[in-house]
Amino acid sequence: MDCQDLNYIKAVDQLEIDKSNRNTRVKIVIQMSRTVELNNGMQMPLVGLGCWKIPNEVCALQVYEAIKIGYRLFDGAQDYGNEKEVGEGIRRAIQEGLVKREELFVVSKLWNSFHDPKNVKRALQRTLDDMQLDYLDLFYMHFPIAQKFVPFEEKYPPGLYTGVQDEQEGVISLENVPIIDTYRALESLVDEGLIKSIGISNFSAALVMDLLRGCRIKPVALQIEHHPYLTQERLVDYVNQQGIQLVAYSSFGPQSFVEMGYELAKSTPTLFENKTVVDIAAAHGSNVSPSQVLLRWATQRNIAVIPKSSRQERLARNLKIDKTLTLSDSELSSLSSLNKNLRFNDPYNWSNKTRLPIFD
Amino acid sequence: MDCQDLNYIKAVDQLEIDKSNRNTRVKIVIQMSRTVELNNGMQMPLVGLGCWKIPNEVCALQVYEAIKIGYRLFDGAQDYGNEKEVGEGIRRAIQEGLVKREELFVVSKLWNSFHDPKNVKRALQRTLDDMQLDYLDLFYMHFPIAQKFVPFEEKYPPGLYTGVQDEQEGVISLENVPIIDTYRALESLVDEGLIKSIGISNFSAALVMDLLRGCRIKPVALQIEHHPYLTQERLVDYVNQQGIQLVAYSSFGPQSFVEMGYELAKSTPTLFENKTVVDIAAAHGSNVSPSQVLLRWATQRNIAVIPKSSRQERLARNLKIDKTLTLSDSELSSLSSLNKNLRFNDPYNWSNKTRLPIFD
Repeated sequence: MDCQDLNYIKAVDQLEIDKSNRNTRVKIVIQMSRTVELNNGMQMPLVGLGCWKIPNEVCALQVYEAIKIGYRLFDGAQDYGNEKEVGEGIRRAIQEGLVKREELFVVSKLWNSFHDPKNVKRALQRTLDDMQLDYLDLFYMHFPIAQKFVPFEEKYPPGLYTGVQDEQEGVISLENVPIIDTYRALESLVDEGLIKSIGISNFSAALVMDLLRGCRIKPVALQIEHHPYLTQERLVDYVNQQGIQLVAYSSFGPQSFVEMGYELAKSTPTLFENKTVVDIAAAHGSNVSPSQVLLRWATQRNIAVIPKSSRQERLARNLKIDKTLTLSDSELSSLSSLNKNLRFNDPYNWSNKTRLPIFD
Repeated sequence: MDCQDLNYIKAVDQLEIDKSNRNTRVKIVIQMSRTVELNNGMQMPLVGLGCWKIPNEVCALQVYEAIKIGYRLFDGAQDYGNEKEVGEGIRRAIQEGLVKREELFVVSKLWNSFHDPKNVKRALQRTLDDMQLDYLDLFYMHFPIAQKFVPFEEKYPPGLYTGVQDEQEGVISLENVPIIDTYRALESLVDEGLIKSIGISNFSAALVMDLLRGCRIKPVALQIEHHPYLTQERLVDYVNQQGIQLVAYSSFGPQSFVEMGYELAKSTPTLFENKTVVDIAAAHGSNVSPSQVLLRWATQRNIAVIPKSSRQERLARNLKIDKTLTLSDSELSSLSSLNKNLRFNDPYNWSNKTRLPIFD
């Protein structure tokens, strides 16, 4: 450890000083996120690091530093285009002995272009190769959308468009692969030990219901857009009842989408300045930020979160919200009552040529 | 024909008097609904008679009278509990030479308890036996919900509960049958010639998308709750693009659900007295009723309707709305802008023990 690393020291919860022998030894205790038990018996941290939009040039370092301050779950995806770097950060931490592979919970998401059962394993293998790992802890189906396959050597990750022409025309080319076929290919990956568990993402309750009627291995988690402007209470209740762990993305609401130029996000007042959020943060002392209130609102409702920050001090505070902040029932309700059914990440709006009404 | 039947005479559009030979002959011309071509080439009337909640004791007569005034499509379902009577009305009209079987478009819906592929054909056969018909023109999957099978001899139609205990506890027992498996059994019925086409009902767009990726025979129609309080424009646009005909039920909004005691329906102002609807009706003359405006708003958007009425004069007027009423674009828009995403028939509310969030 480099003791010049002030952020690290700040993130350390406790220094245990052992003077029992001649050499004074300092034992560093890093507090990690509380975990939840998934329906397959695995333990998953309630707070993880979201890797979406972490720039490639800083990604490996940020992942490494996050491990140092106690992060154990890394929520990546093929589509984020930074899996090599995530893997690099993980590798460095393991090589330095900060953590063992089995102490980490590494997550990726199958991109839409790889839904055909014959491509699912190849796609996972690409992720494992990029990350230089033998297995993933959790592999999500990123969207219930099957796009046309794009060979890795042509473009990886392929994004929304199959080629230049599609991109120019704004057309998304699709493939006729039903969800259950892709899911069964994911089940085979579990059988082979290449992934420990399967997740689904951006599924509506109707799709979850249908999947549960046809799957052999239950998904352990559903990842959804979730913030006080989009509380999705019926979906949340239903999924909880089914023993599937909810994971929230975009916990800060419009924030992530403003920088992407989404009109709806730009015209929506930020949650960080929302009076309800700000007042609750203030009521818990000057150390508590609106972002922590938003995260804690989710985890107190047993919804896991995957915030991202380029500032390590903030990351460290996010990781510990479960221990440092408890909202009252009335605070939780006030936050939930901000709901406006406002969804920012809606594939319906990806292309006005190819409508993908997965939430309609 | 019984010429004392004043309603029938009123419903006749034209009397063609043929004096070319010695005996003056009166030819009665009954105007029927405009039809739409389905994606399998069949013609379907845009206006049909909805059989939901037609009491058993008057059902055969109402169906027979409806045929007399020009109805050709009968939208029934196993769950409505009146298929014997619908069949009886049809049979009488055929026997009296008013219409031939092939001129009719007979519709039923597979109930939730018969989703297991091994029960699908038996259930259809029960409907055909009840109606004494050899085939259906259209057979819908009533809901994307698979309930536990109930033997016919125990209770038919079985409704929501599998037995007395479930009913007392308010629990809906389900079966693990994915939609695609039930749908494939319906496809086999088309292969066997027992049904001419397959429909889906109460499907969200996400479910339609997934079905289209996995089916062999495309559904010809999607039947949904649809009225100015629930316009579902994205779903409508998407389904239109896929060449699937939309059919609206509950075109009058809360109306059907008030008598069922639904709180939401009771607390929602009736569309028949809605100022926009009333003003548009008035603008088209004293003969035009709010209900006709509501139906025409749908058919002008190419959505088929299946109203029901116990009054024959009203039925006759409903059938001819396409010819007697044309709303302007701005009138159509004003009606559409009444949308409140207000859904009355939501299986989520069927039981608070067994939540069925098919629209969440």
